[in-house]
Amino acid sequence: MSERVHSSSVTCPVARAIDVIGDRWSLLILRDALDGVRRFGDFQRSLGVAKNILSDRLRRLVEAEVLVLAPASDGSPYQEYTLSSTGAQLFPVVTAIRQWGEKNLFDRGEPYTRLLDTRTGKPVPVMKPLASDGSVLSADNTAIRRPG
Amino acid sequence: MSERVHSSSVTCPVARAIDVIGDRWSLLILRDALDGVRRFGDFQRSLGVAKNILSDRLRRLVEAEVLVLAPASDGSPYQEYTLSSTGAQLFPVVTAIRQWGEKNLFDRGEPYTRLLDTRTGKPVPVMKPLASDGSVLSADNTAIRRPG
Repeated sequence: MSERVHSSSVTCPVARAIDVIGDRWSLLILRDALDGVRRFGDFQRSLGVAKNILSDRLRRLVEAEVLVLAPASDGSPYQEYTLSSTGAQLFPVVTAIRQWGEKNLFDRGEPYTRLLDTRTGKPVPVMKPLASDGSVLSADNTAIRRPG
Repeated sequence: MSERVHSSSVTCPVARAIDVIGDRWSLLILRDALDGVRRFGDFQRSLGVAKNILSDRLRRLVEAEVLVLAPASDGSPYQEYTLSSTGAQLFPVVTAIRQWGEKNLFDRGEPYTRLLDTRTGKPVPVMKPLASDGSVLSADNTAIRRPG
Protein backbone atom coordinates (compact mmCIF):
# COMPACT_ATOMS: atom_id res chain seq x y z
CA MET A 1 0.00 0.00 0.00
CA SER A 2 3.04 2.23 0.06
CA GLU A 3 3.38 1.96 -3.72
CA ARG A 4 2.75 4.95 -5.91
CA VAL A 5 -0.88 5.77 -6.56
CA HIS A 6 -1.40 5.82 -10.31
CA SER A 7 -3.36 8.58 -11.99
CA SER A 8 -6.11 6.12 -13.04
CA SER A 9 -7.27 6.06 -9.45
CA VAL A 10 -8.33 9.68 -9.89
CA THR A 11 -11.39 8.50 -11.81
CA CYS A 12 -11.49 4.69 -11.47
CA PRO A 13 -13.58 3.52 -8.51
CA VAL A 14 -11.85 0.12 -8.60
CA ALA A 15 -8.40 1.66 -8.28
CA ARG A 16 -9.53 4.05 -5.57
CA ALA A 17 -11.10 1.20 -3.60
CA ILE A 18 -7.99 -0.94 -4.01
CA ASP A 19 -5.92 1.91 -2.59
CA VAL A 20 -7.97 1.47 0.60
CA ILE A 21 -8.66 -2.29 0.83
CA GLY A 22 -6.56 -3.99 -1.89
CA ASP A 23 -4.01 -5.58 0.36
CA ARG A 24 -3.92 -9.17 1.61
CA TRP A 25 -4.02 -8.32 5.33
CA SER A 26 -6.57 -5.53 5.01
CA LEU A 27 -8.95 -7.89 3.21
CA LEU A 28 -8.49 -10.58 5.87
CA ILE A 29 -9.04 -8.02 8.65
CA LEU A 30 -12.27 -6.97 6.93
CA ARG A 31 -13.36 -10.59 6.57
CA ASP A 32 -12.88 -11.02 10.32
CA ALA A 33 -14.52 -7.70 11.20
CA LEU A 34 -17.59 -8.71 9.18
CA ASP A 35 -17.55 -11.98 11.17
CA GLY A 36 -17.67 -10.00 14.44
CA VAL A 37 -14.00 -9.77 15.45
CA ARG A 38 -13.30 -6.49 17.26
CA ARG A 39 -10.14 -6.71 19.36
CA PHE A 40 -6.50 -6.47 18.37
CA GLY A 41 -5.60 -9.76 20.05
CA ASP A 42 -8.47 -11.57 18.36
CA PHE A 43 -7.46 -10.28 14.93
CA GLN A 44 -3.91 -11.35 15.68
CA ARG A 45 -4.90 -14.87 16.71
CA SER A 46 -7.14 -15.28 13.70
CA LEU A 47 -4.65 -13.99 11.15
CA GLY A 48 -1.32 -15.12 12.61
CA VAL A 49 0.14 -11.82 11.43
CA ALA A 50 2.99 -9.86 13.01
CA LYS A 51 1.78 -7.19 15.44
CA ASN A 52 3.46 -4.32 13.60
CA ILE A 53 1.79 -5.28 10.31
CA LEU A 54 -1.58 -5.68 12.00
CA SER A 55 -1.19 -2.30 13.74
CA ASP A 56 -0.32 -0.65 10.46
CA ARG A 57 -3.28 -2.10 8.56
CA LEU A 58 -5.75 -1.34 11.36
CA ARG A 59 -4.47 2.23 11.55
CA ARG A 60 -4.90 2.68 7.79
CA LEU A 61 -8.43 1.29 7.87
CA VAL A 62 -9.32 3.66 10.74
CA GLU A 63 -7.79 6.59 8.81
CA ALA A 64 -9.88 5.61 5.79
CA GLU A 65 -12.98 5.55 8.05
CA VAL A 66 -13.66 1.91 7.22
CA LEU A 67 -13.09 0.91 10.86
CA VAL A 68 -13.82 2.96 13.96
CA LEU A 69 -11.73 2.63 17.13
CA ALA A 70 -13.76 2.99 20.31
CA PRO A 71 -13.80 1.86 23.96
CA ALA A 72 -15.11 -1.69 24.44
CA SER A 73 -18.88 -1.89 24.59
CA ASP A 74 -18.73 -4.12 27.69
CA GLY A 75 -16.94 -1.51 29.85
CA SER A 76 -13.67 -3.46 29.92
CA PRO A 77 -10.43 -1.51 29.39
CA TYR A 78 -10.02 -2.83 25.84
CA GLN A 79 -10.50 -0.81 22.70
CA GLU A 80 -12.49 -2.26 19.86
CA TYR A 81 -12.37 -1.88 16.11
CA THR A 82 -15.86 -1.81 14.69
CA LEU A 83 -17.03 -1.37 11.11
CA SER A 84 -18.27 2.07 10.12
CA SER A 85 -21.28 2.17 7.79
CA THR A 86 -18.74 2.49 4.95
CA GLY A 87 -16.99 -0.63 6.24
CA ALA A 88 -20.20 -2.61 6.65
CA GLN A 89 -20.89 -1.95 2.96
CA LEU A 90 -17.91 -4.18 2.15
CA PHE A 91 -20.06 -7.24 2.84
CA PRO A 92 -20.77 -7.74 -0.91
CA VAL A 93 -17.04 -7.44 -1.70
CA VAL A 94 -16.00 -10.10 0.80
CA THR A 95 -18.98 -12.27 -0.19
CA ALA A 96 -18.02 -12.09 -3.88
CA ILE A 97 -14.43 -13.06 -3.03
CA ARG A 98 -15.73 -15.93 -0.86
CA GLN A 99 -18.05 -17.25 -3.52
CA TRP A 100 -15.34 -17.14 -6.19
CA GLY A 101 -13.05 -19.09 -3.85
CA GLU A 102 -15.75 -21.67 -3.04
CA LYS A 103 -16.45 -22.28 -6.70
CA ASN A 104 -12.92 -22.31 -8.06
CA LEU A 105 -10.36 -23.16 -5.39
CA PHE A 106 -11.71 -26.26 -3.65
CA ASP A 107 -11.80 -29.83 -4.90
CA ARG A 108 -15.10 -31.64 -4.90
CA GLY A 109 -15.87 -32.79 -1.35
CA GLU A 110 -13.13 -30.66 0.23
CA PRO A 111 -14.53 -28.97 3.36
CA TYR A 112 -14.71 -25.19 3.71
CA THR A 113 -16.30 -22.58 5.96
CA ARG A 114 -19.74 -21.53 4.78
CA LEU A 115 -21.66 -18.28 4.93
CA LEU A 116 -25.20 -19.03 6.08
CA ASP A 117 -28.41 -17.03 6.16
CA THR A 118 -29.07 -17.10 9.93
CA ARG A 119 -32.87 -17.09 9.49
CA THR A 120 -32.94 -20.17 7.27
CA GLY A 121 -29.59 -21.84 8.05
CA LYS A 122 -29.02 -22.14 4.30
CA PRO A 123 -25.91 -21.04 2.38
CA VAL A 124 -26.09 -17.55 0.90
CA PRO A 125 -27.01 -17.89 -2.80
CA VAL A 126 -24.36 -16.97 -5.36
CA MET A 127 -24.43 -13.21 -5.92
CA LYS A 128 -24.58 -12.08 -9.56
CA PRO A 129 -24.53 -8.65 -11.18
CA LEU A 130 -28.01 -8.26 -12.67
CA ALA A 131 -29.37 -5.86 -15.29
CA SER A 132 -32.53 -3.94 -14.50
CA ASP A 133 -34.51 -6.66 -16.34
CA GLY A 134 -32.97 -9.36 -14.13
CA SER A 135 -30.62 -10.86 -16.73
CA VAL A 136 -27.10 -11.76 -15.59
CA LEU A 137 -24.31 -9.35 -16.55
CA SER A 138 -20.70 -10.28 -17.27
CA ALA A 139 -17.63 -8.68 -18.84
CA ASP A 140 -19.13 -9.68 -22.23
CA ASN A 141 -22.25 -7.53 -22.00
CA THR A 142 -20.87 -4.56 -20.07
CA ALA A 143 -18.36 -1.85 -20.92
CA ILE A 144 -16.44 0.86 -19.11
CA ARG A 145 -17.21 4.47 -19.97
CA ARG A 146 -14.66 7.07 -18.97
CA PRO A 147 -15.92 10.44 -17.76
CA GLY A 148 -16.00 13.60 -19.86
CA MET B 1 1.87 -12.54 -1.91
CA SER B 2 5.15 -13.96 -0.68
CA GLU B 3 3.96 -13.83 2.91
CA ARG B 4 3.25 -17.01 4.81
CA VAL B 5 -0.03 -18.68 4.07
CA HIS B 6 -1.92 -19.03 7.32
CA SER B 7 -3.67 -22.24 8.22
CA SER B 8 -7.10 -20.58 8.00
CA SER B 9 -6.76 -20.63 4.23
CA VAL B 10 -6.99 -24.42 4.43
CA THR B 11 -10.75 -24.11 4.92
CA CYS B 12 -11.61 -20.42 4.38
CA PRO B 13 -12.58 -19.62 0.78
CA VAL B 14 -11.90 -15.91 1.37
CA ALA B 15 -8.35 -16.57 2.52
CA ARG B 16 -7.70 -19.01 -0.29
CA ALA B 17 -9.01 -16.53 -2.87
CA ILE B 18 -6.92 -13.73 -1.38
CA ASP B 19 -3.83 -15.92 -1.73
CA VAL B 20 -4.50 -15.83 -5.49
CA ILE B 21 -5.93 -12.34 -6.16
CA GLY B 22 -5.52 -10.34 -2.92
CA ASP B 23 -2.78 -8.05 -4.04
CA ARG B 24 -3.05 -4.49 -5.33
CA TRP B 25 -1.46 -5.15 -8.73
CA SER B 26 -3.18 -8.48 -9.32
CA LEU B 27 -6.57 -6.85 -8.73
CA LEU B 28 -5.76 -4.00 -11.10
CA ILE B 29 -4.54 -6.48 -13.75
CA LEU B 30 -7.83 -8.36 -13.40
CA ARG B 31 -9.82 -5.13 -13.69
CA ASP B 32 -8.00 -4.39 -16.96
CA ALA B 33 -8.31 -7.99 -18.25
CA LEU B 34 -12.08 -7.82 -17.66
CA ASP B 35 -12.05 -4.56 -19.63
CA GLY B 36 -10.37 -6.35 -22.58
CA VAL B 37 -6.66 -5.63 -22.03
CA ARG B 38 -4.54 -8.57 -23.27
CA ARG B 39 -0.97 -7.50 -23.97
CA PHE B 40 1.92 -6.89 -21.61
CA GLY B 41 2.59 -3.39 -22.96
CA ASP B 42 -1.06 -2.41 -22.63
CA PHE B 43 -1.19 -3.59 -19.01
CA GLN B 44 1.99 -1.67 -18.35
CA ARG B 45 0.69 1.56 -19.87
CA SER B 46 -2.59 1.27 -18.01
CA LEU B 47 -1.07 0.49 -14.62
CA GLY B 48 2.19 2.45 -14.71
CA VAL B 49 3.81 -0.45 -12.90
CA ALA B 50 7.44 -1.61 -13.12
CA LYS B 51 7.95 -4.37 -15.70
CA ASN B 52 9.39 -6.84 -13.19
CA ILE B 53 6.40 -6.47 -10.87
CA LEU B 54 3.97 -6.80 -13.78
CA SER B 55 5.81 -9.90 -15.06
CA ASP B 56 5.67 -11.46 -11.60
CA ARG B 57 1.96 -10.84 -11.10
CA LEU B 58 1.04 -12.03 -14.61
CA ARG B 59 3.11 -15.19 -14.10
CA ARG B 60 1.36 -15.91 -10.78
CA LEU B 61 -2.08 -15.40 -12.33
CA VAL B 62 -1.16 -17.76 -15.20
CA GLU B 63 0.13 -20.34 -12.69
CA ALA B 64 -3.13 -20.06 -10.77
CA GLU B 65 -5.01 -20.63 -14.08
CA VAL B 66 -6.81 -17.30 -13.76
CA LEU B 67 -5.12 -16.01 -16.93
CA VAL B 68 -4.05 -18.02 -19.98
CA LEU B 69 -1.01 -17.04 -22.07
CA ALA B 70 -1.48 -17.72 -25.78
CA PRO B 71 -0.32 -16.45 -29.20
CA ALA B 72 -2.15 -13.31 -30.34
CA SER B 73 -5.49 -14.01 -31.98
CA ASP B 74 -4.67 -11.67 -34.89
CA GLY B 75 -1.60 -13.66 -36.06
CA SER B 76 0.86 -10.97 -34.90
CA PRO B 77 3.99 -12.11 -33.02
CA TYR B 78 2.64 -10.89 -29.67
CA GLN B 79 1.45 -13.13 -26.88
CA GLU B 80 -1.79 -12.34 -25.12
CA TYR B 81 -3.07 -12.87 -21.60
CA THR B 82 -6.73 -13.84 -21.68
CA LEU B 83 -9.05 -14.73 -18.84
CA SER B 84 -9.72 -18.40 -18.24
CA SER B 85 -13.28 -19.35 -17.29
CA THR B 86 -12.08 -19.19 -13.66
CA GLY B 87 -10.76 -15.69 -14.31
CA ALA B 88 -13.93 -14.51 -16.05
CA GLN B 89 -15.84 -15.49 -12.90
CA LEU B 90 -14.04 -12.66 -11.10
CA PHE B 91 -16.42 -10.18 -12.73
CA PRO B 92 -18.65 -10.04 -9.61
CA VAL B 93 -15.58 -9.48 -7.39
CA VAL B 94 -14.31 -6.53 -9.41
CA THR B 95 -17.87 -5.19 -9.79
CA ALA B 96 -18.44 -5.32 -6.02
CA ILE B 97 -15.14 -3.48 -5.43
CA ARG B 98 -16.12 -0.90 -8.08
CA GLN B 99 -19.56 -0.31 -6.61
CA TRP B 100 -18.18 0.10 -3.09
CA GLY B 101 -15.70 2.65 -4.43
CA GLU B 102 -18.38 4.54 -6.37
CA LYS B 103 -20.61 4.78 -3.32
CA ASN B 104 -18.02 5.59 -0.67
CA LEU B 105 -14.90 7.16 -2.16
CA PHE B 106 -16.15 9.94 -4.43
CA ASP B 107 -17.58 13.30 -3.50
CA ARG B 108 -20.94 14.27 -4.91
CA GLY B 109 -20.50 15.35 -8.53
CA GLU B 110 -16.94 14.06 -8.77
CA PRO B 111 -16.54 12.23 -12.12
CA TYR B 112 -15.64 8.53 -12.32
CA THR B 113 -15.55 5.74 -14.88
CA ARG B 114 -18.83 3.83 -15.10
CA LEU B 115 -19.67 0.23 -15.83
CA LEU B 116 -22.54 0.17 -18.32
CA ASP B 117 -24.87 -2.53 -19.57
CA THR B 118 -23.99 -2.43 -23.30
CA ARG B 119 -27.53 -3.37 -24.38
CA THR B 120 -29.20 -0.51 -22.52
CA GLY B 121 -26.33 1.94 -22.00
CA LYS B 122 -27.37 2.18 -18.36
CA PRO B 123 -25.11 1.78 -15.31
CA VAL B 124 -25.02 -1.74 -13.85
CA PRO B 125 -27.38 -1.81 -10.84
CA VAL B 126 -25.81 -2.20 -7.40
CA MET B 127 -25.18 -5.89 -6.72
CA LYS B 128 -26.49 -7.20 -3.39
CA PRO B 129 -26.27 -10.60 -1.71
CA LEU B 130 -29.84 -11.89 -1.70
CA ALA B 131 -31.48 -14.66 0.30
CA SER B 132 -33.52 -17.25 -1.59
CA ASP B 133 -36.66 -15.19 -0.81
CA GLY B 134 -35.09 -12.08 -2.37
CA SER B 135 -34.37 -10.21 0.88
CA VAL B 136 -31.03 -8.43 1.17
CA LEU B 137 -28.36 -10.14 3.27
CA SER B 138 -25.67 -8.39 5.30
CA ALA B 139 -23.19 -9.28 8.04
CA ASP B 140 -26.08 -8.85 10.49
CA ASN B 141 -28.25 -11.66 9.17
CA THR B 142 -25.56 -14.13 8.09
CA ALA B 143 -22.99 -16.20 9.99
CA ILE B 144 -19.93 -18.27 9.25
CA ARG B 145 -20.10 -22.01 9.91
CA ARG B 146 -16.82 -23.86 10.15
CA PRO B 147 -16.63 -27.38 8.71
CA GLY B 148 -16.76 -30.55 10.77
